Amino acid sequence: MRIAIDAMGGDHAPQSNIDGALAAAAEWKDVEIILVGDQARLESLLSGRDVPSNFSIQHASEVIHSEDEPVKAVRRKKDASMVVAGRMLKEGRADAMISAGNTGALMTTGLLVVGRIEGIERPALAAMIPTLDDVGVVALDLGANMDSKPQHLAQFGLMGSLYRQKVQGIANPRVGLLNVGVEPGKGNELTKDAFPLLQEMPIHFVGNVEARDVMAGNCDVLVCDGFAGNILLKSIEGTAGAMFSLLKEQFSQTFKSKMGAALLMPQLKGLKKKLDYSESGAAPLLGLSSLVMKSHGSSDGHAIKNAVKQTRIALENELVPSISKEISGK
Amino acid sequence: MRIAIDAMGGDHAPQSNIDGALAAAAEWKDVEIILVGDQARLESLLSGRDVPSNFSIQHASEVIHSEDEPVKAVRRKKDASMVVAGRMLKEGRADAMISAGNTGALMTTGLLVVGRIEGIERPALAAMIPTLDDVGVVALDLGANMDSKPQHLAQFGLMGSLYRQKVQGIANPRVGLLNVGVEPGKGNELTKDAFPLLQEMPIHFVGNVEARDVMAGNCDVLVCDGFAGNILLKSIEGTAGAMFSLLKEQFSQTFKSKMGAALLMPQLKGLKKKLDYSESGAAPLLGLSSLVMKSHGSSDGHAIKNAVKQTRIALENELVPSISKEISGK
Repeated sequence: MRIAIDAMGGDHAPQSNIDGALAAAAEWKDVEIILVGDQARLESLLSGRDVPSNFSIQHASEVIHSEDEPVKAVRRKKDASMVVAGRMLKEGRADAMISAGNTGALMTTGLLVVGRIEGIERPALAAMIPTLDDVGVVALDLGANMDSKPQHLAQFGLMGSLYRQKVQGIANPRVGLLNVGVEPGKGNELTKDAFPLLQEMPIHFVGNVEARDVMAGNCDVLVCDGFAGNILLKSIEGTAGAMFSLLKEQFSQTFKSKMGAALLMPQLKGLKKKLDYSESGAAPLLGLSSLVMKSHGSSDGHAIKNAVKQTRIALENELVPSISKEISGK
Repeated sequence: MRIAIDAMGGDHAPQSNIDGALAAAAEWKDVEIILVGDQARLESLLSGRDVPSNFSIQHASEVIHSEDEPVKAVRRKKDASMVVAGRMLKEGRADAMISAGNTGALMTTGLLVVGRIEGIERPALAAMIPTLDDVGVVALDLGANMDSKPQHLAQFGLMGSLYRQKVQGIANPRVGLLNVGVEPGKGNELTKDAFPLLQEMPIHFVGNVEARDVMAGNCDVLVCDGFAGNILLKSIEGTAGAMFSLLKEQFSQTFKSKMGAALLMPQLKGLKKKLDYSESGAAPLLGLSSLVMKSHGSSDGHAIKNAVKQTRIALENELVPSISKEISGK
């Protein structure tokens, strides 16, 4: 299996992408890693490092930046690393791509370069949110679309359910709808209209789920529009970060508390790891005709390597063909 | 000043409302507390307790429950405690009301019974979200409206700014727009269209704020639609709760960690208090022609007393007349 990695996407590009790509190529010999970016620059950064034989570079002269307007950038920068990786999928020169770059641009690359599965109206970003029981909940959409229609949410439910079945081996995933109350009839126009459509889907729909109950793990798939999903995910991230700052501050107040914090260090580190985004690697853009994986913008080499790990599992378990078969019968 | 308290609203009604009302009447002699609910029942619950002279009961025979459909309930249950309290405002028999009951029904009571300030299209629930610096950010709307228009969000910004000036003494409050990225042009249709309207308001608009930065305290007022606001608030609540559960679990793993946790107990309690909703008392429904305060559904007596404290400050500082003057010039 051939996995293209966008060398230039993410806050720590290209270094973290090089590190992750090299580590992945060294670990999984059945994977061919193709790093996409400026050849001369990448080669100079690779000098002196061990480069495995299943690692190669695909030249791409341009870069899409985080502040670029997605549609314009993808249309104009035809030789951007992200766009070139997308074209490799379209032309069958790679089986999957990974990027830690601009989410909107990646979504646009998916739509305009890679293409949708027939019958899917809107692809969705399906990311893992940590839960207390360590199983995690896959939430979608987490930012690929900003304005969704009820029928999009219903398709998100179906794609998320297939993802958990095929890639994560959950037999009958419970699908919930992110809402402001658990009772049917609660919500804004979008969620009120999506509720009956989700009931009609061939999934195990468990109804509305409130944001405060998400981490309790009472569903396996959480359906939401991209705006609300982004608010949810970033609130969790921000609150966890704020609490660690507060703990650190409070724990250094007195000699007694410093002693206590020292004794608790392994547990505090464990907790941080549990809530760490980079551990979960990457999120698939479901609904595209090939596998496109989004890594967190702040990904380090470890996160990129994890993204390759997940991509490999998704390819092995034929995630994209499964969705295509379920939706369009092809 | 006369403050009507809905005796029957909230998860612990009427007991917590009675406790809070009695404590507030005992503490602030310049306030007249009127507890609204079933007279016979309230009197029997009050028997044997010290009842201050600035405390009285207003009879109301019906109750609006949390599962009631808001508009129907307010229209049909004309003698519900919440509706009777609203009527007392309308008829000038009270200056403010507090309820821990059904948020939708309270909003409906505000709209249909109390009435809006001229020029305000949609009232908003303005609740305090804890921040790292302890100042807090007032977010609105937090669930009074489910579907908002860009011009509603612009008015929320203005009302929130006045609230922080008048009640909390912040001279030039920074107003931010909850969004998925900080750059102008980010967001869904609603936030993209609200952005230029907020720029035109007579406020100190600081642009978009991401959910993960809310607790860092980089704005004093956070503008959002009620759905997104609810997701934000409940995510913060849920994440903080989940982290405390995880801490508790991890801290009891080994003898060493138990020792550490014991040493840290005062700090952990302090942190919990810092993030505790009930400490902030109540949230005003801004944009109504009289002061309506919403207490958290899980309010205990302490939270209800805190709600009276805040209501007293808002009345003293003429919050509602200030908004009315700014919006309609009256």
